[in-house]
Amino acid sequence: MIDQLIANIKKTNAPIVVGLDPMMKFIPEQIQKAAFAEYGETLKGAAEAIWQYNKGIVDAVADLIPAVKPQIAMYEQFGVAGLIAFQKTVAYCKEKGLVVIGDVKRGDIGSTSEAYAVAHLGKVVVGEKSYAPFDEDFATVNPYLGSDGINPFIKVCKEENKGIFVLVKTSNPSSGEFQDRLVDGRPLYEIVGEKVAEWGSECMGSEYSNVGAVVGATYPEMGKALRKVMPKSYILVPGYGAQGGKGADLVHFFNEDGLGAIVNSSRGIIAAYQQEKYAQFGAANYADASRQAVIDMREDIAQALQGRK
Amino acid sequence: MIDQLIANIKKTNAPIVVGLDPMMKFIPEQIQKAAFAEYGETLKGAAEAIWQYNKGIVDAVADLIPAVKPQIAMYEQFGVAGLIAFQKTVAYCKEKGLVVIGDVKRGDIGSTSEAYAVAHLGKVVVGEKSYAPFDEDFATVNPYLGSDGINPFIKVCKEENKGIFVLVKTSNPSSGEFQDRLVDGRPLYEIVGEKVAEWGSECMGSEYSNVGAVVGATYPEMGKALRKVMPKSYILVPGYGAQGGKGADLVHFFNEDGLGAIVNSSRGIIAAYQQEKYAQFGAANYADASRQAVIDMREDIAQALQGRK
Repeated sequence: MIDQLIANIKKTNAPIVVGLDPMMKFIPEQIQKAAFAEYGETLKGAAEAIWQYNKGIVDAVADLIPAVKPQIAMYEQFGVAGLIAFQKTVAYCKEKGLVVIGDVKRGDIGSTSEAYAVAHLGKVVVGEKSYAPFDEDFATVNPYLGSDGINPFIKVCKEENKGIFVLVKTSNPSSGEFQDRLVDGRPLYEIVGEKVAEWGSECMGSEYSNVGAVVGATYPEMGKALRKVMPKSYILVPGYGAQGGKGADLVHFFNEDGLGAIVNSSRGIIAAYQQEKYAQFGAANYADASRQAVIDMREDIAQALQGRK
Repeated sequence: MIDQLIANIKKTNAPIVVGLDPMMKFIPEQIQKAAFAEYGETLKGAAEAIWQYNKGIVDAVADLIPAVKPQIAMYEQFGVAGLIAFQKTVAYCKEKGLVVIGDVKRGDIGSTSEAYAVAHLGKVVVGEKSYAPFDEDFATVNPYLGSDGINPFIKVCKEENKGIFVLVKTSNPSSGEFQDRLVDGRPLYEIVGEKVAEWGSECMGSEYSNVGAVVGATYPEMGKALRKVMPKSYILVPGYGAQGGKGADLVHFFNEDGLGAIVNSSRGIIAAYQQEKYAQFGAANYADASRQAVIDMREDIAQALQGRK
């Protein structure tokens, strides 16, 4: 699956992933009103609003980007109806040729971790039939439980040609509380990064591994160090835009070949119309605002990468 | 909510939680056949089998135990249908007066972590209405992202009188890969335990905190140390039974007051009829086997605690 992601990145010339993290406050009033008119102010109504909102954005940006990253929490909070919207979003994006990274941050052990892997990347057996429940292409995974949590995902990735991104150094301010603690003089995130490289070596694509890592844009120096620790792992980089990461910070996450990283932006793209910069589009044309924000982000990253040479 | 859990423990005299982690291989054939006859070999059929199986066990053991712990991965792997079975199980157990610990191991940051907290412990707002999507009493939470991941859960716990159990030292063999690494001469799990005590002080019940910790039965010496680090935190102890933890190992997890810990057993209870010890019950009476296994577990723990005095 990493080969598919890289092919998409090369085709679009945009190492960008759009985070489909819908919050009600982002969804234009006209979409909410239409959904509530049909289903009432119910979980189903909220889920319909999310789905229509997503669809508008995906239709507007699909030709520009290689991948999307729906954040399942934003769907899960609307219960079963929300998860149906998640499922529809995943399927729709795949139809459009996009690689779908399920930002699920699951993590458990043994048969439980395998159940999560099956839920999101694999197939579950029922009697003599089998089903792919959520069927993302990649999933994000939490490493705190160690190899017992990761290996069941790798097993499913091999069977299904899928991939994972393991949390290594997250973009949030308090990520250092545990991740930066020094172990034999080295920060924990480096130890985790080493394990990612090790896990990744068991599940290679052509050039890069199907086991990638999450490293926040807000910590460029750490990204630089981790880039070396995990040379074959793609880095999924959150924290660009709204969280404060800038284009220039991102160069360290890429390898010399211009590959090796994919930068996520969520509200910076999907709620672009709410920013002053894109206000002229208005709520009615929110999807056009998102398209423009993708074009601007692509340019920002391209310039930063060019400036590096 | 911790007060409710403690009240239930005192009433049943059993610091036990039954892990409702249904796997198809545990579910007696007659239940699977009936479910597939109604819904076919579909996700819905699997979910119906899970639900009927759970219901049988809960009916058989509810008067003996204070709490259950459904493992959401085992439901999530059957997609939306599975999550409906999860929801039904949660609601049914609450009707029976049981405290429900959602073993969801979620963890993210900021508004995303809040969305998870809302999904599992709180209420989500839709227009002028609000809904409680999954509505467990407690949820398990992963600490790797630090306070930014935990605080949104604590906020919801305060609003809704709910609780969390934070992963500190998990029961699996590879839990030491990161959790045992020494930071300034002390293992990481102790650093996490200290944070649990700190987070817990902001969210107290009468005697214990609504912020508890997960510490595996398989590491009794570490449990002993962590018991001191987090005196006001309830410890949820997995790993008893199938994973190798014994009654005698458990005493260290309890405080002098006989409180402070609740021990989970999953397959040891729910699939008891598949063990030689309970084989005489047969698949038809699987729930009676579960009841006997609960009685034996209660006795094992009571003896261990008595032996300590």
